[in-house]
Amino acid sequence: MYVEALDRIVLKDRVSQRAFANASTVRKAAITTRVMQLVHQLLRKNIHTSKRDIFYADPNLFSAQEESDAVLNDIACIVGCTRTSLAIVASDKGVVIGRVSFREAGDLIDCTKMGIGGKAIPPYIDQITDIQSDAEFILLVEKNAVFTRLSEDRFYNKFPCIMITGKGQPDVATRLFLRRMRDTLRIPVLGLVDADPYGLKILSVYMSGSKSMSYDSANLTTPDIKWLGVRPSDLSKLNIPDQCRLPMSASDIETGKSLLKEDFITKNPAWVAELETMVNTKEKAEIQVLTHFGFQFITEVYLPTKLKAGDWI
Amino acid sequence: MYVEALDRIVLKDRVSQRAFANASTVRKAAITTRVMQLVHQLLRKNIHTSKRDIFYADPNLFSAQEESDAVLNDIACIVGCTRTSLAIVASDKGVVIGRVSFREAGDLIDCTKMGIGGKAIPPYIDQITDIQSDAEFILLVEKNAVFTRLSEDRFYNKFPCIMITGKGQPDVATRLFLRRMRDTLRIPVLGLVDADPYGLKILSVYMSGSKSMSYDSANLTTPDIKWLGVRPSDLSKLNIPDQCRLPMSASDIETGKSLLKEDFITKNPAWVAELETMVNTKEKAEIQVLTHFGFQFITEVYLPTKLKAGDWI
Repeated sequence: MYVEALDRIVLKDRVSQRAFANASTVRKAAITTRVMQLVHQLLRKNIHTSKRDIFYADPNLFSAQEESDAVLNDIACIVGCTRTSLAIVASDKGVVIGRVSFREAGDLIDCTKMGIGGKAIPPYIDQITDIQSDAEFILLVEKNAVFTRLSEDRFYNKFPCIMITGKGQPDVATRLFLRRMRDTLRIPVLGLVDADPYGLKILSVYMSGSKSMSYDSANLTTPDIKWLGVRPSDLSKLNIPDQCRLPMSASDIETGKSLLKEDFITKNPAWVAELETMVNTKEKAEIQVLTHFGFQFITEVYLPTKLKAGDWI
Repeated sequence: MYVEALDRIVLKDRVSQRAFANASTVRKAAITTRVMQLVHQLLRKNIHTSKRDIFYADPNLFSAQEESDAVLNDIACIVGCTRTSLAIVASDKGVVIGRVSFREAGDLIDCTKMGIGGKAIPPYIDQITDIQSDAEFILLVEKNAVFTRLSEDRFYNKFPCIMITGKGQPDVATRLFLRRMRDTLRIPVLGLVDADPYGLKILSVYMSGSKSMSYDSANLTTPDIKWLGVRPSDLSKLNIPDQCRLPMSASDIETGKSLLKEDFITKNPAWVAELETMVNTKEKAEIQVLTHFGFQFITEVYLPTKLKAGDWI
């Protein structure tokens, strides 16, 4: 459930019991114990693994991956720690580039010297230490193609920043990484997302978390992300021609209307206004709409204007 | 079509004409000219972009992205170059780690010092220069989770190698990168994929390319990849228990049978034998099946044994 004071999705206050001596729960209790033993083994060796590997460690007992997956979350709750602390991590796909350096498994990583492709965000956040940065903000980019444009233009040198992308819907590693950067550096996070309901949904996952990972929301969420753009109001401000605006589908409009009831929207009147504009005009747009004014318009005009004016909400 | 002498999929010998003065082709001719102009602009500025951005540069004319996408391939054929040379690249998701260093957009990247997450393979292969390596082979890993296991164990220091993953079905950037490494370093490429038809399909995309990108197959394909494992014969050799083997679905078996007719399989009798075993036993397995013997079995036993014995086909 969403808790306003914490500004994130957290677990409800419910307890479940599993008795070894009860036929209906003995199997689940056995699985729980076995997974705990495997996790113990990982922690003693100081290595990490994936959920799939946990399943294959004892397929006779688990019989399906859903069974071992399910108890992993339970164990995190029992021990009162994060799933990452159990040395089990999901696949990673995020990338970081810009004005930050850190040590990863002992290696010194300087993200200003990562070419165009950037540094793959590691699955194991606990391997990251010594974060150093002179960045003034973190630019969170929804789309990989936009990230690449900014990275080729070395935007982070024009406006000292750290650029992070989760390539669409972010994975756990990227969310942990963003939160960690935010906590260590205490600089604002500015979101560059599509002007559509999906863009806001992605921001909400970074901000208040997802239901499936609610037990770990304390480490995964970055509550105070500012919405830089592309915002529905930008479309008229910039005189974006009709051909670049996309009509919202019926399901887009429905998603938009249901977002208007979500806490992370309602607590910010400026967000409500933008979302209402979107739902009323029934128009959406992607970040790449800015390409209409030139391939480098985003780097040379749009972002500099926004940043100088402090135009985020 | 697949050409045996070249060992890859190439274009058929067909020509299409577009006249400005013909009502049926004038629109396509106009689009072609406009895209050529945009590409010219990119090349003069020495910047790169994505297919989506090309569409947004003139949505009035293109009206749908399919229209601008379609002519991009045509232009590559007209000019007789690759799509990458047109400065237009697809999204990238591959990662590299291990015994190789190169310059990317001027930055020196040392892939032995990339922590666990590794270096994101850049979308722009032309920005990579000065490739240096003391690796003895390239280990091509299908799955990201397996890649991470090997990367955490710094497998590349036990057996000097470069590790590359395309995280499943590889993107264009990863395929270009692999080919470039292969051409420059002239070391063998060993494939570590699932023992299922999908694993072989992924190998075939790296090896002989895909139909949609056939005009660029000369730069995208790495013909002589060796199949290291996990191979169907490994399952019995290692006494993998039944619970770890997965039953093949009807469509798996069908895919397997159709693969038996593909050129990249038939030209290698050892591959045919393995695939026949798979289709006959109707059993498949993932790389992670090795976890049954311990989380680090793959790093400490399986790969060292295979490599020392030269057990690839």
